[in-house]
Amino acid sequence: MNKIEVCLSPELIHLYDLKGKIVVVVDIFRATSTMVTGLANGVSSITPVAGLETCRQMKSQGYIIAGERNGQTADGFELGNSPLSYLNNAFENKKIAVTTTNGTLTIEKSKTDAAEVLIGAFLNLKATAEYLAIQEKDVIIHCAGWKGMFNLEDSLYAGALVNSLKDHFTFECDGAIAMKALYEQNQDDLKGFLSQASHAKRLQNHNIDADIDFCLTLDKFDFIGKLEDEKLIKHPVH
Amino acid sequence: MNKIEVCLSPELIHLYDLKGKIVVVVDIFRATSTMVTGLANGVSSITPVAGLETCRQMKSQGYIIAGERNGQTADGFELGNSPLSYLNNAFENKKIAVTTTNGTLTIEKSKTDAAEVLIGAFLNLKATAEYLAIQEKDVIIHCAGWKGMFNLEDSLYAGALVNSLKDHFTFECDGAIAMKALYEQNQDDLKGFLSQASHAKRLQNHNIDADIDFCLTLDKFDFIGKLEDEKLIKHPVH
Repeated sequence: MNKIEVCLSPELIHLYDLKGKIVVVVDIFRATSTMVTGLANGVSSITPVAGLETCRQMKSQGYIIAGERNGQTADGFELGNSPLSYLNNAFENKKIAVTTTNGTLTIEKSKTDAAEVLIGAFLNLKATAEYLAIQEKDVIIHCAGWKGMFNLEDSLYAGALVNSLKDHFTFECDGAIAMKALYEQNQDDLKGFLSQASHAKRLQNHNIDADIDFCLTLDKFDFIGKLEDEKLIKHPVH
Repeated sequence: MNKIEVCLSPELIHLYDLKGKIVVVVDIFRATSTMVTGLANGVSSITPVAGLETCRQMKSQGYIIAGERNGQTADGFELGNSPLSYLNNAFENKKIAVTTTNGTLTIEKSKTDAAEVLIGAFLNLKATAEYLAIQEKDVIIHCAGWKGMFNLEDSLYAGALVNSLKDHFTFECDGAIAMKALYEQNQDDLKGFLSQASHAKRLQNHNIDADIDFCLTLDKFDFIGKLEDEKLIKHPVH
């Protein structure tokens, strides 16, 4: 069987060997949830960019630019980081370029060596698990965290994905064991458990409770988000 | 109220501000458990040293030298990293110098800015909690992990300590929330839960099951281990 590992922060990813593996990047609140939602709502592609200035300049190349820092829309950007902005096919057939505090940096740190980079969200958990189960590759779940620190929501997603894949993969990694146990303990009330968490509190301060509810919705979408040629695209499970 | 935070790896400690805080370094299997046991058995002091060569040279200065790498006694050292070696006052009134794979490096990374550095173990959990509860300082629990990676046993200790201090400290740090929940879930069978863990498996391969049992014993000792003038010493709770 292939193995599944969990890396709890982009500050730890250098300790892992990504070669030949599928890396699933997760930033539940809100980058990867928002990206998946954009893809579900017909955007043609999403280009993740680590730096604000690089992203800003992509406007002149025909991109809709989305920029978030510290939970808020960055100066000069058309969009922030809310999944709700993309509903009702609001940006159908548009190319998006996006930079966020944690998520896009985590993608950047994943893509050099990995065989494939996916983006993970509760919104397409089951689809992602189904896809991974048939790839015959080792998997690393790469949690974006918050400015390098461990965070609860990304780790719970990691636990949920390990739990979904427990019959298909071995998991000896301590991070995988711990987060699977934490998810099993709290899966019936993720929002209640996360309400203690620092980042959820930060988001509540920004009055985006609706975003939190949306990002915690399970299996709303039935496709995977995959990085191809520097762009995230919608990809079928089979 | 003062606050308590958990740092899950020495590779993340640069993200925390240690100034004015008490840092509790934990390396359950086995460095800090062994140090506490040495102090309980009458050694006069334990000097943690990050490097093998520096430690080796301290033999000529009258130290008993203890060295461990990758779970085994390092070449040329009198002692490895087993708490059982120190029982029955085997090294009473001796000065020990010690270097280990993870624990001594974690102490090294803690001591520059912190107000105080303690070593934590299940063996003196209650004593450490009682001491911290009356200091009126913020606390950071610094898990040694395994070569920079998250590990289960140090994180469970962090959760146990947060749990013991929950009425005395605020804890908004996601690491503290997660590890407290994980400890609460598994406190009645720590060994069973840890038997899945990668480091415990490594230790079992070295036939040191007795060490594991010993390191998971709760509250065998009633003092704290504290770094003073580069040496760990036995210190009363009150």
